[in-house]
Amino acid sequence: MTITITAFERSPDRGKGLARDMRVRWALEEVDQPYDVRLLSFKAMKEPAHLALHPFGQIPTYEEGDLALFESGAIVFHIAERQPGLLPDDANARARAITWMFAALDTVEPPIFDRALVRILERDEPWYEQRLRVLEDTIRKRLSGLSTRLGDADWLDGAFSAGDLLMVTVLRRLQGSGMLEEYPNLAAYVARGEARPAYKRAFDAQLAVFTAASTG
Amino acid sequence: MTITITAFERSPDRGKGLARDMRVRWALEEVDQPYDVRLLSFKAMKEPAHLALHPFGQIPTYEEGDLALFESGAIVFHIAERQPGLLPDDANARARAITWMFAALDTVEPPIFDRALVRILERDEPWYEQRLRVLEDTIRKRLSGLSTRLGDADWLDGAFSAGDLLMVTVLRRLQGSGMLEEYPNLAAYVARGEARPAYKRAFDAQLAVFTAASTG
Repeated sequence: MTITITAFERSPDRGKGLARDMRVRWALEEVDQPYDVRLLSFKAMKEPAHLALHPFGQIPTYEEGDLALFESGAIVFHIAERQPGLLPDDANARARAITWMFAALDTVEPPIFDRALVRILERDEPWYEQRLRVLEDTIRKRLSGLSTRLGDADWLDGAFSAGDLLMVTVLRRLQGSGMLEEYPNLAAYVARGEARPAYKRAFDAQLAVFTAASTG
Repeated sequence: MTITITAFERSPDRGKGLARDMRVRWALEEVDQPYDVRLLSFKAMKEPAHLALHPFGQIPTYEEGDLALFESGAIVFHIAERQPGLLPDDANARARAITWMFAALDTVEPPIFDRALVRILERDEPWYEQRLRVLEDTIRKRLSGLSTRLGDADWLDGAFSAGDLLMVTVLRRLQGSGMLEEYPNLAAYVARGEARPAYKRAFDAQLAVFTAASTG
């Protein structure tokens, strides 16, 4: 059955792989699953046809036959559950990998995403510096906990899993901030993720959309 | 095998069921699974024994034999996967219920949780009013999308699921704000969750901890 995902027609990150379809593309590449992409303008994302698929009018969505899903975490989990390669077979190891999926999205991502938003939307506000400092303190607490747990391992719990896939995409948003480099094992962990052939294929595919939109 | 979860020795919400152990307690009650609770002071949460269980030093955690998990979403999912009652049998319906779990925690909760934090921590900051307004605008967008999707149904997708369980716990944090009442079907949805016998048992159990700590 054909899999169709949605993505930004023109991604705000200019194709740097920070839009949330990147996670889904990467997961599909890890399990060697071909997919189609339907590109959406910001206007189309808020129209009834897309709201029927995604109640909050965002990307990505995932369609496969009768099934329609949204939320990048849920889509990555669905892919990981159906195809081997992203979740361990052992029941306890599988539950721990799923724990890292939730940790990436619920505990590590929120302050990192807020920092990115604040840098765009609140740069001219009088409180900008103070607010950034508060967020960066929270981010450092998360990075410190994560760095200690990772130690000198390659991945968070045994083999590469959907938990690592999501965590790497979350941490990448800190690139350029200098914060990742304060935790060398985390910087190396992100680089390890980005070096995976499936990551590279996914990154190139989403970058090609932006490049085509810019030159077309 | 005995299940042991962790919870606040003295919950900051004074036993109103907003601490994240509530979700785990409710899920365990829905599937009729007995459990033990280990209470932690804020100091103990940051000590090595607890950090070995939870890399970010938070509650709840979940221990069952050799298995140790953290992240309330992951724990609820683990419970839902092992015992009938919280996820549908049909594969597509199950994937959609899991989507609502991620939607509750990744899309609906962040602005609601931020609003609660800002009201406590940033009340005296120069940005307080503006920041609150921005967050409340975001929250209303989420509530509007959710309200439209729910319509006049009892639950988000067919029978009550772990997705509803998490969504109700997320929305409850808006009680007292007046925002939930702007969407009568969402207010009724939350009340429907709170009326479940399993919810009530879980609520009473966590309230009893706070009451004992206050009078002990």
